[in-house]
Amino acid sequence: MNANRERIAKLQQEMKAEGMDMYLVPTADFHQSEYVGDYFKARAWISGFTGSAGTLVVTQDQACLWTDGRYFIQAAKQLEDTGVSLMKMGEEGVPTVDAFIQENLPENGCLGCDGRTISVAEGKEYEKLLDGKEAVMKCGVDLAGKIWTDRPEMSREPVYVLDVKYAGKSREEKIAQVREEMENAGADIHVLSSLDDIVWLLNIRGNDIEYNPVVLSYMILTMDQVHFYVQEEAVPSEVRKELEEAGVALHPYFQVYEDVKKIDPARKVMLEETCTNYTLYKNIPQGTEFVFRANPAAIFKGNKNAVEMENLKIAHIKDARAMCRFIYWLKNNVPGGEVTEYSASMKSREFRMEDPDCLDLSFETICAYGPNAAMCHYAPTENNCAKVEPKGFFLIDSGGQYWQGTTDITRTIAVGELTQEQKEHFTLVLQGHIRMAMARFQYGCSGANLDILVRGPLWEHGLDFNHGTGHGVGYLLNVHEGPQNINWKIRSGGRRGNATPLEEGMLTSDEPGLYLEGEYGIRTENLLLCKKAEKNSYGQFMEFETVTLVPYEREAILTEMLTKKELDWLNAYHKKVYETIGPMLNEEEKAWLKEAAAPLN
Amino acid sequence: MNANRERIAKLQQEMKAEGMDMYLVPTADFHQSEYVGDYFKARAWISGFTGSAGTLVVTQDQACLWTDGRYFIQAAKQLEDTGVSLMKMGEEGVPTVDAFIQENLPENGCLGCDGRTISVAEGKEYEKLLDGKEAVMKCGVDLAGKIWTDRPEMSREPVYVLDVKYAGKSREEKIAQVREEMENAGADIHVLSSLDDIVWLLNIRGNDIEYNPVVLSYMILTMDQVHFYVQEEAVPSEVRKELEEAGVALHPYFQVYEDVKKIDPARKVMLEETCTNYTLYKNIPQGTEFVFRANPAAIFKGNKNAVEMENLKIAHIKDARAMCRFIYWLKNNVPGGEVTEYSASMKSREFRMEDPDCLDLSFETICAYGPNAAMCHYAPTENNCAKVEPKGFFLIDSGGQYWQGTTDITRTIAVGELTQEQKEHFTLVLQGHIRMAMARFQYGCSGANLDILVRGPLWEHGLDFNHGTGHGVGYLLNVHEGPQNINWKIRSGGRRGNATPLEEGMLTSDEPGLYLEGEYGIRTENLLLCKKAEKNSYGQFMEFETVTLVPYEREAILTEMLTKKELDWLNAYHKKVYETIGPMLNEEEKAWLKEAAAPLN
Repeated sequence: MNANRERIAKLQQEMKAEGMDMYLVPTADFHQSEYVGDYFKARAWISGFTGSAGTLVVTQDQACLWTDGRYFIQAAKQLEDTGVSLMKMGEEGVPTVDAFIQENLPENGCLGCDGRTISVAEGKEYEKLLDGKEAVMKCGVDLAGKIWTDRPEMSREPVYVLDVKYAGKSREEKIAQVREEMENAGADIHVLSSLDDIVWLLNIRGNDIEYNPVVLSYMILTMDQVHFYVQEEAVPSEVRKELEEAGVALHPYFQVYEDVKKIDPARKVMLEETCTNYTLYKNIPQGTEFVFRANPAAIFKGNKNAVEMENLKIAHIKDARAMCRFIYWLKNNVPGGEVTEYSASMKSREFRMEDPDCLDLSFETICAYGPNAAMCHYAPTENNCAKVEPKGFFLIDSGGQYWQGTTDITRTIAVGELTQEQKEHFTLVLQGHIRMAMARFQYGCSGANLDILVRGPLWEHGLDFNHGTGHGVGYLLNVHEGPQNINWKIRSGGRRGNATPLEEGMLTSDEPGLYLEGEYGIRTENLLLCKKAEKNSYGQFMEFETVTLVPYEREAILTEMLTKKELDWLNAYHKKVYETIGPMLNEEEKAWLKEAAAPLN
Repeated sequence: MNANRERIAKLQQEMKAEGMDMYLVPTADFHQSEYVGDYFKARAWISGFTGSAGTLVVTQDQACLWTDGRYFIQAAKQLEDTGVSLMKMGEEGVPTVDAFIQENLPENGCLGCDGRTISVAEGKEYEKLLDGKEAVMKCGVDLAGKIWTDRPEMSREPVYVLDVKYAGKSREEKIAQVREEMENAGADIHVLSSLDDIVWLLNIRGNDIEYNPVVLSYMILTMDQVHFYVQEEAVPSEVRKELEEAGVALHPYFQVYEDVKKIDPARKVMLEETCTNYTLYKNIPQGTEFVFRANPAAIFKGNKNAVEMENLKIAHIKDARAMCRFIYWLKNNVPGGEVTEYSASMKSREFRMEDPDCLDLSFETICAYGPNAAMCHYAPTENNCAKVEPKGFFLIDSGGQYWQGTTDITRTIAVGELTQEQKEHFTLVLQGHIRMAMARFQYGCSGANLDILVRGPLWEHGLDFNHGTGHGVGYLLNVHEGPQNINWKIRSGGRRGNATPLEEGMLTSDEPGLYLEGEYGIRTENLLLCKKAEKNSYGQFMEFETVTLVPYEREAILTEMLTKKELDWLNAYHKKVYETIGPMLNEEEKAWLKEAAAPLN
């Protein structure tokens, strides 16, 4: 019997014992992180689907897994033989998780889940759903943990300090900034469980989630105290000393669940519903008044300060050097027949890690050849990867964590001859990508307003891609962060709202793509730094500075499809790439880059 | 003493007598109409400002008038010497009306207004504001009416029937459609006071608001009854007969205020908060349950049916003929020195009204020469208008009410030599206008997603215009209607939401402009009919068909600023204009049009 089938059967037994009709296993850790440590990968362990986003719902009769467009192809493969049905989110006729619960949970039934793995917002939604059914929610038991025999330990990697020369602001300044917002909101206490907000606030980093330099922790902030809940063995004594000197009191990680119970209900508590866990919230005494709003730290973190802006440009130059060297290596080695997706991935890592300021990759490298690139978040492994043939497209989406910031870049590289259709598709994707980079817009515009610049050329040809156009990027922090987002679909709620205006200092990806299942995939991605442009009687105009500096595949560009302005932009960009990165390369690489970045007409 | 100063002083006396600290005079009639009949123009009569949008707020110390960007210049002129302060909506540092009330109404104070002139939504907002101040609202007295000695009578123009060959659907079908929505919403009773929704539903038209073929009326719709409240002398006996045969019961106009008091509180009432008057709502018995949602009629009305779509194209051909003849006339007569803005306006009316299917204009014609065109909604009068000199730009924004639909077109015409800057500005406006017309987009996109196509070329040059890019247009009905809207600023609430997806059958204006105070104004406007384009695995794509068919000013187009695609679009458009309209003109006009629409390169 398939291992995942067995695990689901065991879960169903446990559910019966607990009197639960339905059990939810989301992807989240206790911090509503997008990516989670191995300890938290219960959904993957049970269902077999390893993508970064998905929700498993199990009843006595069935098991269903919801995931989004990035993962439809991968999930279909991984769920084969597990008995788990794939629910393609957003597709016509596919119910949402909520609608499924509504449909399938019996009246007076019981819905189970580990309340620490759902957000306050989700918990409240479920409460509403259940109210209508006189059903109850049981959130205190971690059933997945119960059946997971060889569960990995919780990560407790060492915490380190991010010097103010990188952070731009001291932790005291940042905490004062947040307290000002608490005061404005009339809140006395601020409870945080979102890891990137906490480490940003304390100017520390860790390594508790692969590629995400965060520290498993919680925080309770008052007007005069900072309580930091962390696995204490992860905090080296010099870091502890530095934190304590700044007035930060350290407590054991799980103690936060007890401490929130002691909150005086006469005080007003501020928290963000979409990134604070439901159990934590339910433990706060009844009758306490809440201010639900975005964590101020998340807003401040999103708008990079002047020091961060200068640093992150340096990170992108370092990263561009590694990527240019990689592309040169790839083009030279594919014809020899020895390159696989995996070896290319390792090689790109090697080039990045040569830089002493590069601490890690910023996410799992996607190296995908041919049809594999049509799976947006495909990642090769040593034993399961394609050989790169000297023909068609090779796609690499990768990034690094530098002291000077986080990078994220995608290039689609011709490793041999291309078809006319491949060139047309590549150019359509590039055209949208360039239009966004060139955009000038009124202050107040959000990603929902801008997305059509990127998708327009594809839409014109009846094409599209099934993922967002852009996400915020952290500073030596998560490669996906809010509060902004580029996507035409206007969503409310969530941590990354595409109706959030683009502010000076926001770093956002510009990454349109096109995916032909079974054939090939194209994606082109740079990071754009939002800046103020001219202010006049018509308003405050905004623009982007492209910080990624790596040439686009010239073999794939049909210049006649671009407007003169777009072509001018492209040539100016390539000129800057060569002038900036050229001097950092060896002679052969430099000669190649000169060609790769030469003017097109 | 200035007459408006006197009227405000009288209002202040009446306020004192009623114990009111503050009195609101909005622009609305009892139906929250955008334009109002003379009977309802209390705000204009008191303040002196005649623009179509504005709110007057009077206290014992001051009088303030709020209006939007279209009217800043006009209002500043008209409020001179009245003692009324101009509050420029949306400008930095200018409080909203709500903020002003919050700031200036004393604790335990009293806010007065005629509750029939504010919407349910507004009334509720004021209630909230006042709650915080322990203040009260007095809505039962029409103070403005009290001091208005020579108030015009309420209009009662004859009601006429719109044949189903024009309407496309019978009133029975439409009412059944609305009842289906009531059923879906669990509502038993639907109260309507929005005039265009009511006449659309009953397939009737009238003339109670200048240029808006509506009938002053209310409606109470149940699952088996239709109650229509109307000034009965306005309904000819054959129309009454036809309505009664369709099951419509007629009642006196003001009786609705009594009839809603008799609603059984056990029934559920559906109404739209932004277009139903507050007094009507407050008269419904306490304890009644409400469904607040957009009037189904407003949604159905916005998506023109197949018959309406075919008809409105005919209306636009008729209208284009009139406009082409007008432009030819203008170009030939300006050099003689006898043309004024007013005479041009009259001439354009004459050309339109020659068509027996043209019943009226669809709004007050804007004919503006030179600097006058920088005032977006400037309208000349016989005694106050500029002479049109053979130099620079002349702007005409006008439209007609035809049996086959409503038109709205703006052209900026060169009546003599243009400067290079004028041509550059004209071309930037035209470029955005063309980009919108050419757009293809995913179903689900709203005006907020599309607006950057139009504004992009201006933004790139640090320019913008201070009005929406597009509005919905009725069918032989209001020239402004919802539910869609083209504007990047995402607004919630209101009847025209720019987050409303563009549906097949929506008719929307595409009218970017540029206004240089004291110099000149440019605006270019066509109407676009939204249609389904290809549906494939990427989704349902949508596109526009341009229904307006009048050439753009070729003298003002710098073709080198346009992309090849934009120029191709322009030439194809001009070709269609000549082929469609040419045969309807006399020889001289036709020869001119051939030149005006000849290919550009």
